[in-house]
Amino acid sequence: MTTPRLDDAALDAIFRTARSFNGYTDEPVADAELEAVWELMKWGPTSANQLPARLVWVRTPDGKEKLAACATGTNPDKIRQAPATVIVGMDTDFHEQLPWLFPHADARSWFAGNAELRQASAFRNSTLQGAYLMIAARALGLDIGAMSGFDAGEVDKAFFADTPSVHANFIATIGHGDPATVHDRLPRPDFGTFNRFA
Amino acid sequence: MTTPRLDDAALDAIFRTARSFNGYTDEPVADAELEAVWELMKWGPTSANQLPARLVWVRTPDGKEKLAACATGTNPDKIRQAPATVIVGMDTDFHEQLPWLFPHADARSWFAGNAELRQASAFRNSTLQGAYLMIAARALGLDIGAMSGFDAGEVDKAFFADTPSVHANFIATIGHGDPATVHDRLPRPDFGTFNRFA
Repeated sequence: MTTPRLDDAALDAIFRTARSFNGYTDEPVADAELEAVWELMKWGPTSANQLPARLVWVRTPDGKEKLAACATGTNPDKIRQAPATVIVGMDTDFHEQLPWLFPHADARSWFAGNAELRQASAFRNSTLQGAYLMIAARALGLDIGAMSGFDAGEVDKAFFADTPSVHANFIATIGHGDPATVHDRLPRPDFGTFNRFA
Repeated sequence: MTTPRLDDAALDAIFRTARSFNGYTDEPVADAELEAVWELMKWGPTSANQLPARLVWVRTPDGKEKLAACATGTNPDKIRQAPATVIVGMDTDFHEQLPWLFPHADARSWFAGNAELRQASAFRNSTLQGAYLMIAARALGLDIGAMSGFDAGEVDKAFFADTPSVHANFIATIGHGDPATVHDRLPRPDFGTFNRFA
């Protein structure tokens, strides 16, 4: 089993020439395209197959207004304009699903009664899934723009009131990017700046 | 600017047929291949270009023994056997780099004096970078196996003693995967289980 290297066009599409978008063209995005993002990202690894991410794909005018009301700065307008905005939530009671997600060990018992470990694990692993989501969207020909500028407590009240163990982690707009909305590219240092061998 | 969709072989390589490996073949991995992982993953987005990940690529016998001594369960042997294990650390003082990483605003001031926000931001964004690292490694024809089974405090003492603002987040072995070391694939639910539209 030799893992093949992706060609340059693919490396460009998911990393090297990919950009964060602040606005999108009128080209529509179908629900099925968003479902396909999940069907791809779900294969990315999480610790003990926790899969703690709980995703809300905001598509309707009412949903967009509700989410825009929780966002800060220029983010409300981005949410209104984008074909979709996904809320990456995390379930701190993810361990209740482990008997079927990780059936060969009693993984539920590793987390039951340890809220601090569950919080850190849900945060880490839902964030991994959020990164998989962004790469998967790009791999399927979509563009994204992630945002941290929102009131997480308000998003929880507006979208996760019925599931109190679920909390918003970050959000991202999705669509076909409008190149006019891209900022100048920010610096990315060479290997030696933030890396070393040991 | 239309983002091209990756072909099926590429989608398989980074997500659909990719697996987490517990052991690797004898095929060597060059330092330059690990540097290439950084040169690809560094383009993945982080909030305000924080780039808080600090990566230690453990390659030497001494380094492997030092890291193995911090790991639990079967992880010490995996670290010894793998061509490389990367420690994904996070710098909670990442904001000191923002004057040059995010030069068009005083982003440093958003984080100075707010240790709680810096902790959450460093954790979230270094984890995103860890996910980019895993996908980038696969995209370049390498295989990986992420691990949370280690004592983070001991890793900090062994590898980050000179940089007290840097803390271990997670670790991952890297090499050319030995298919004999792969476990049965764990369930991945359909869209409706952990997703909804709003």
